[in-house]
Amino acid sequence: MSVYTSVTKQALTDWLAGYALGELVDLKGIAAGITNTNYFVTTTHGRYVLTLFEALQLHELPYYLQLMSHLSRHGVACPAPVADNTDRLASMLCGKPACLVTCLDGADVSEPSATQCRALGEMLATLHRAGDTFTLKMKNPRGPRWWSQAAQTLYARLPDSDAAMLRAEIQLQDSHRFDHLPSGVIHADLFKDNVLMKGEAIAGFIDFYYACNDVLLYDVAIALNDWARKADGTIDDTLARALLDGYRKVRPLTAEEEQNWPVMLRAGALRFWVSRLLDLHFPPAGELTFTKDPAVFRQLIVDYSRRTDFWL
Amino acid sequence: MSVYTSVTKQALTDWLAGYALGELVDLKGIAAGITNTNYFVTTTHGRYVLTLFEALQLHELPYYLQLMSHLSRHGVACPAPVADNTDRLASMLCGKPACLVTCLDGADVSEPSATQCRALGEMLATLHRAGDTFTLKMKNPRGPRWWSQAAQTLYARLPDSDAAMLRAEIQLQDSHRFDHLPSGVIHADLFKDNVLMKGEAIAGFIDFYYACNDVLLYDVAIALNDWARKADGTIDDTLARALLDGYRKVRPLTAEEEQNWPVMLRAGALRFWVSRLLDLHFPPAGELTFTKDPAVFRQLIVDYSRRTDFWL
Repeated sequence: MSVYTSVTKQALTDWLAGYALGELVDLKGIAAGITNTNYFVTTTHGRYVLTLFEALQLHELPYYLQLMSHLSRHGVACPAPVADNTDRLASMLCGKPACLVTCLDGADVSEPSATQCRALGEMLATLHRAGDTFTLKMKNPRGPRWWSQAAQTLYARLPDSDAAMLRAEIQLQDSHRFDHLPSGVIHADLFKDNVLMKGEAIAGFIDFYYACNDVLLYDVAIALNDWARKADGTIDDTLARALLDGYRKVRPLTAEEEQNWPVMLRAGALRFWVSRLLDLHFPPAGELTFTKDPAVFRQLIVDYSRRTDFWL
Repeated sequence: MSVYTSVTKQALTDWLAGYALGELVDLKGIAAGITNTNYFVTTTHGRYVLTLFEALQLHELPYYLQLMSHLSRHGVACPAPVADNTDRLASMLCGKPACLVTCLDGADVSEPSATQCRALGEMLATLHRAGDTFTLKMKNPRGPRWWSQAAQTLYARLPDSDAAMLRAEIQLQDSHRFDHLPSGVIHADLFKDNVLMKGEAIAGFIDFYYACNDVLLYDVAIALNDWARKADGTIDDTLARALLDGYRKVRPLTAEEEQNWPVMLRAGALRFWVSRLLDLHFPPAGELTFTKDPAVFRQLIVDYSRRTDFWL
């Protein structure tokens, strides 16, 4: 359940008077997402998604909202923020920073086909290319420095074997530098539940609130680790190959990217292994988090450490 | 038939490589519109409208394209131009300035209902409000100076009674000044064939290439003169009232606007009476113009000169 802040029809009607969107017809809470409050808002002009930010502050929103605006202007399938009559993309509602974005058709898939993985790869590369002309910048708050610090708080809580493996994995990543690889705007959280599909086509990427500037290949690794992962926790070769093929058709990888690809896949797995371990051992107070299993990412790292074919 | 410039699949494929829109799937000429060449373009990412400008030059396009971009960002239903990988909204294709915009669902209506007229008025007021924060400017090339000059070339071609009426009508307009009325961005050509409807709702305004900065009320008059005009050439009171009510719900008229409203309706009629007379007596060389009947606007002026109720 993700409605932390209740919005009344009256409060929303008053707020909507600042927009050129006609009159409020319907308001319905959305029971997905764990960080923010989301509503479907229907007006006489159409259907929108209202987000009230429970953690991000108003001054932190421009990067994400302008990015979505920029990407949709370039044809990348994603929600487009709607500007109010004074040209702002966000303002306060019920005490929280709030924005309206266009509502996309489509639904997320739990078992994507190879065609869907190919489309995903293609759209991700499209996002990376369209990001080239986006001028705002945001550091990745979930990089090597973050996972090294997080690991320090985790070691004491983990079984010895897991702690040893985490330590070794962080050392492995420390011994590789990715600074020279192509970088730009990345989604950084392109799991299956952040993509709406309409049949075999991408209806839209959603939830851009982890987006940042970082190495592009890291984004490919994060996406592949979720999209091509089978129920048994291992990677499906056909899905992985389809995703990579789709990506490379739009943005071919450099020789250096290909060389770093196996370690990058492990970096993508490490990032989520660590964040899920944190959620498990240090659950955020007051939040109704769906605790997701950290073990799938540990298993993925083991899988990668034994693999020789990385679908290139 | 409005395909003046032929675009091959190969030429379009090369041009689309500069966009983040996936691969070309289909290309189909659109047989509507009389000024530019239009195609439906389907790519792996979606459906778009390609316009090749036959008269406007590349440096003249930013006002129109940025305006559509601005309006759609504010929730006004209209096509959104797609930016290429270097962030341009238009570039040359087959020797013509060309742009891609999103494709809207819906179709134009020839006999609108009162509900549709109300929705039209509401969306037009929305456009006027959203135009407040648009910073580019464009003079109206079809204003009093233009119709006075055009009339000089027409008098000799017209039957005496028509020439006398045209002269009197221009004098009437000259005796009124609208400079003090609220002004801003206007569409300036919001006839029924420039609006796509989806049931009772506005799917989108199209064809913004007469848009300019002028008196807002002039735009309302132009729209009403087409939307509320019956087959017999007179205005339907119910449709006119619905359109005005829809408009005023979003942007109430000032006392001065109400006072000038009857003359403004005649200004809107005069503008199209003159342009249609020009098309009839001086058809543009080489263009396959559908010559539209000027007499409907002369008749409308007669109708207005006898009327006392203007639905306020």
